Amino acid sequence: MTISPFDHPFLSGLLGDDEIASYFSIEADIRAMASFEAALARAEAAHGLIPADAARRIADAAFSPDVSSLRSATARDGVVVPDLIKQLRTAVGEEAAKSLHLGATSQDVIDTSLMIRLKAVAFLFAGRLSAIAAGLDVLDRQFGRNHLMGHTRMQAAIPITVSDRLNTWRAPLTTYRDRLTELSFPVQFGGAAGTLDKLGPQAAAIRASLAQELGLTDAPQWQSGRLPIADIAGLFASISGSLGKMGQDIALLAQAGDEIEISGGGTSSAMAHKQNPVSAEVLVSLARFNATALSGIHQSVIHEQERSGAAWTLEWLLLPQMTMATAASLRLAGELAGNIKRLGTA
Amino acid sequence: MTISPFDHPFLSGLLGDDEIASYFSIEADIRAMASFEAALARAEAAHGLIPADAARRIADAAFSPDVSSLRSATARDGVVVPDLIKQLRTAVGEEAAKSLHLGATSQDVIDTSLMIRLKAVAFLFAGRLSAIAAGLDVLDRQFGRNHLMGHTRMQAAIPITVSDRLNTWRAPLTTYRDRLTELSFPVQFGGAAGTLDKLGPQAAAIRASLAQELGLTDAPQWQSGRLPIADIAGLFASISGSLGKMGQDIALLAQAGDEIEISGGGTSSAMAHKQNPVSAEVLVSLARFNATALSGIHQSVIHEQERSGAAWTLEWLLLPQMTMATAASLRLAGELAGNIKRLGTA
Amino acid sequence: MTISPFDHPFLSGLLGDDEIASYFSIEADIRAMASFEAALARAEAAHGLIPADAARRIADAAFSPDVSSLRSATARDGVVVPDLIKQLRTAVGEEAAKSLHLGATSQDVIDTSLMIRLKAVAFLFAGRLSAIAAGLDVLDRQFGRNHLMGHTRMQAAIPITVSDRLNTWRAPLTTYRDRLTELSFPVQFGGAAGTLDKLGPQAAAIRASLAQELGLTDAPQWQSGRLPIADIAGLFASISGSLGKMGQDIALLAQAGDEIEISGGGTSSAMAHKQNPVSAEVLVSLARFNATALSGIHQSVIHEQERSGAAWTLEWLLLPQMTMATAASLRLAGELAGNIKRLGTA
Amino acid sequence: MTISPFDHPFLSGLLGDDEIASYFSIEADIRAMASFEAALARAEAAHGLIPADAARRIADAAFSPDVSSLRSATARDGVVVPDLIKQLRTAVGEEAAKSLHLGATSQDVIDTSLMIRLKAVAFLFAGRLSAIAAGLDVLDRQFGRNHLMGHTRMQAAIPITVSDRLNTWRAPLTTYRDRLTELSFPVQFGGAAGTLDKLGPQAAAIRASLAQELGLTDAPQWQSGRLPIADIAGLFASISGSLGKMGQDIALLAQAGDEIEISGGGTSSAMAHKQNPVSAEVLVSLARFNATALSGIHQSVIHEQERSGAAWTLEWLLLPQMTMATAASLRLAGELAGNIKRLGTA
Repeated sequence: MTISPFDHPFLSGLLGDDEIASYFSIEADIRAMASFEAALARAEAAHGLIPADAARRIADAAFSPDVSSLRSATARDGVVVPDLIKQLRTAVGEEAAKSLHLGATSQDVIDTSLMIRLKAVAFLFAGRLSAIAAGLDVLDRQFGRNHLMGHTRMQAAIPITVSDRLNTWRAPLTTYRDRLTELSFPVQFGGAAGTLDKLGPQAAAIRASLAQELGLTDAPQWQSGRLPIADIAGLFASISGSLGKMGQDIALLAQAGDEIEISGGGTSSAMAHKQNPVSAEVLVSLARFNATALSGIHQSVIHEQERSGAAWTLEWLLLPQMTMATAASLRLAGELAGNIKRLGTA
Repeated sequence: MTISPFDHPFLSGLLGDDEIASYFSIEADIRAMASFEAALARAEAAHGLIPADAARRIADAAFSPDVSSLRSATARDGVVVPDLIKQLRTAVGEEAAKSLHLGATSQDVIDTSLMIRLKAVAFLFAGRLSAIAAGLDVLDRQFGRNHLMGHTRMQAAIPITVSDRLNTWRAPLTTYRDRLTELSFPVQFGGAAGTLDKLGPQAAAIRASLAQELGLTDAPQWQSGRLPIADIAGLFASISGSLGKMGQDIALLAQAGDEIEISGGGTSSAMAHKQNPVSAEVLVSLARFNATALSGIHQSVIHEQERSGAAWTLEWLLLPQMTMATAASLRLAGELAGNIKRLGTA
Repeated sequence: MTISPFDHPFLSGLLGDDEIASYFSIEADIRAMASFEAALARAEAAHGLIPADAARRIADAAFSPDVSSLRSATARDGVVVPDLIKQLRTAVGEEAAKSLHLGATSQDVIDTSLMIRLKAVAFLFAGRLSAIAAGLDVLDRQFGRNHLMGHTRMQAAIPITVSDRLNTWRAPLTTYRDRLTELSFPVQFGGAAGTLDKLGPQAAAIRASLAQELGLTDAPQWQSGRLPIADIAGLFASISGSLGKMGQDIALLAQAGDEIEISGGGTSSAMAHKQNPVSAEVLVSLARFNATALSGIHQSVIHEQERSGAAWTLEWLLLPQMTMATAASLRLAGELAGNIKRLGTA
Repeated sequence: MTISPFDHPFLSGLLGDDEIASYFSIEADIRAMASFEAALARAEAAHGLIPADAARRIADAAFSPDVSSLRSATARDGVVVPDLIKQLRTAVGEEAAKSLHLGATSQDVIDTSLMIRLKAVAFLFAGRLSAIAAGLDVLDRQFGRNHLMGHTRMQAAIPITVSDRLNTWRAPLTTYRDRLTELSFPVQFGGAAGTLDKLGPQAAAIRASLAQELGLTDAPQWQSGRLPIADIAGLFASISGSLGKMGQDIALLAQAGDEIEISGGGTSSAMAHKQNPVSAEVLVSLARFNATALSGIHQSVIHEQERSGAAWTLEWLLLPQMTMATAASLRLAGELAGNIKRLGTA
């Protein structure tokens, strides 16, 4: 099935991103969910809640998921976790099974799996931002002193330098890289209703161990407080928005034609002479997509009671795609910066 | 890759729809695009623009696409069509190749393929709406005279009957079915810049033949006038919105607990006693998703000049998913209506 | 207070519209609400529910609202109607007071007042669309045969005529005018929980009389079925969207500079030589505003139970402004068409 | 004119906020714009660009704006500044007039005026957040040990304490208060095309002085880099979103009825017995409004070239209202917390 361009056999060539997509494969998701269970077992064993042997079995379990069962169970339960745990329990054996997922709930597993993967993604995004900034630096060294007609309200205003324009493209990238680095990726661990009711006085200590095991930030449960999601989505939308501004600028330069030379433009099925600034345009599309989707993420901040099925499911429909739109933006912006052969006039 | 829940190995059990998804497979898309080229060739042959023999060859061509080539070409060109045409030209042979895609442009192929498939989807949606309405009729016959506490501003107001509530769920469905039936699915055919510049005085007649061949409405090109897209998206969002209202009502009934009995609820990984009204909640998620996405579709109405790459690509990121969200809504609403075992109190 | 540009002492010069704003004054709103009560009294008197004399008194009441009391009551009640009815009861005298608002609820008054005013607005919008289309006709007669470079993907494609471009601007306007004319403006009348529980067997007949008195369409209550609102909002967003496309095209023409001459452009505080295509740009802003707001209107379709305070209030925050954005779009597009002094090259 | 509820004679009782609205009066706006010009003159005099005497005259000018002229000029110019400067020049006298607005452009004045006022607003918001948190602390001391049924997926899950629920409401408020305090409110100063082309080598020093005069952060111009706007809007949407979650929770508690007592609910025009949880519902409306509007703010991040009329104007249509929606949320949440007379069961 090929509904989303990010997952699409041929559209993903344009709008996808192989590197980041791998973090949204079910293999990656299930691996991260299993690592949550393994880390939880280790943390609970360390605090004496479950036998050390059970924790070892859980961590070492060879597990090959029955995806078809996961699919039909998700249709029934609204989440994959109950069936996944059932399958994992079979894999670890009857004895360790009792110690698996102790005190945890579906949201703990799914939200934490997401954070594990988004943390890795954010690291890659930071690197890409540096690479784009470096590409703009190269352009600056080559063409920075060239003249460019400054435009305000879509009218020629006064001449500026190519450096001036490049600065407006580059400045936010550095900010974003710093923010990605500072972004908090908190573990989610709350149990049935967010109170870790089954863990007693050691609850906080176990959560801290769990976070440490997984390389995440220790924080109180956020199962109905979705600020971490809104923050990440907002940053992603800002990144693709600033790259969309760069894309719009380049598309306008390409239209005027005399102040830019780009290689690698697209061909047309009707007109052999055209060189379309495809990546520049797609940067605009992706920015508008994220601006659109962000609205839904903020609708889901209105997350009723201890845990909302409706608001949570809405996030699933939006955040992975926002991540991919950001990934594709970063990929395309990097390529585009590299394809600029001339900017401004001497 | 599994970024979108609609395409996802296990989430699609909950949020997908096998029947409608098949219209968004690349097989279905390529088949529809090839049928555009075949119908165009026949129409052009009928009007003497190309040899009848070429049209026959184009229509009969056995064609097995090289998807990997389509993917890399889409990355370069921003659309799949130039490479698809190239592959088709090879398939039909050198002589007929000259007659293929004559006077057409990428957008003609892609938009028309979309309309061919959406027309079929709309037909199925109309049937599903009837089925849900029939399911509500059954409930009405069984429980219509039962009492239900009417609620306004989330407070008990005055008693109503179950029929009253069912009427508010059913009334829009009939409207939507009628609208789906009346919806126009126009052929898109404009050539390089919308003027059918290569077809001369027969342009309108050829377009009419093309539309007839494909079972679509004949209409002037709409390549930068995206009202047909906005209309379809608006109707889809309205459908899922009304079903979301039904879902929200049922979730609220399920929370109160005494006025509804539902079978088939979801299980919980933490609490064995719970029966979660998963489909009811997901109807709300899908409604909010479509409400969110509709905004982006209307952003893309601002479609500059003769053809916009940026606005058009934005549609690709949203409309197929809106279609799927509507499909999943209809599927879940039908299941949910069937799972209601009691409504109101005698 | 001057938070919204549509209401703003100086920004309304750019973004407002005096003619349409008058329909959103509290005078107009209160007049329409009072006319609902008067029409309801007449309809109920005609069907023998209340004395004819009471209906006369209600219709003839001289009423001067205490706005400060309305304001504090709205703060408490969430709607203006309870206090307005209280004030009206005092105005009509003790005897008629008992017959006022009989069987009606707040939403009946407010939604019907809105429909009365939107119907008048739609009529004016239809006239403006005709005027813009006529303005484009004039341009077509003057410059239709001129050449214009067709642009696709923001690149020069092939030459088109000015007529070709004007057609894409004009075509949707005719469609919108027809749709505005066909749009249904239904009376809202349901009573406390939508069942007209106080009116007995004559309920439907009274509602029909009420609708006729007010010049609205008779229809079952839609207090939790907000399709009429979504339809109007969708049409408004489409109108401003198509005008936004025209604005974007003109802004791009003005940037290139050689294919258009516009009078009346804005001046700059920093650069005396500039002529900014202000109206063209603002058409884009208003289109994006409506595209944004439409999303919230569709969120409010998820309108729980018999009447939702939350979803209904959300409409108030969006629909009047969408109407104004559309009004300003139509005003600006008409002015802009009149200010085009040359289009294309001979 | 009364299009926006925030500006409305009676709806503002519910949806407005007098304290914050005063920052959006034209008096406040013009005062802030005049203080920009005064501070700029002082900074330029300090660096020898203009005579100290001229700076004094500019700072001391008694100025009473001709609003009607501002309105018609804004209609023409798209911004108020050119006419405002003209009026100010008359006010300061011919000699000082030459030194007024030297090297500045419209966007410098308007964006800086906005930042001056938003900085004051953010300070007030931080105070309100503390007050709400304190109100929740009071509830915690009174009712924290009471029992509350925890709900997940809108179904009773396991019992929690009132403290548990209050924690989820309070936790984000502290975060928001800290973020408001840390938020950067940068001066905007770039001149015609962002390069401060008229100020020569002293440009950066003058900008720093200007920022210091105005109590704003010194930063390079951000006239086409709208991250400061997106950041503020995102924070506002998050604040109202978390308060919307609290409102939704309280509305659901009020519907169930046995776990909460609230005073001050709204009355109904149809049902004397009802106590509507109006503020709780309105918190949801305002949260969904801001979630909707945020999308448009992110659309305007795609801000082409040196300065975009279209994207900038879109901000004006959204950000003041987002500020007001946040203000009303904070006001209502504070009132609501104070009106809770009982929470949970002993």
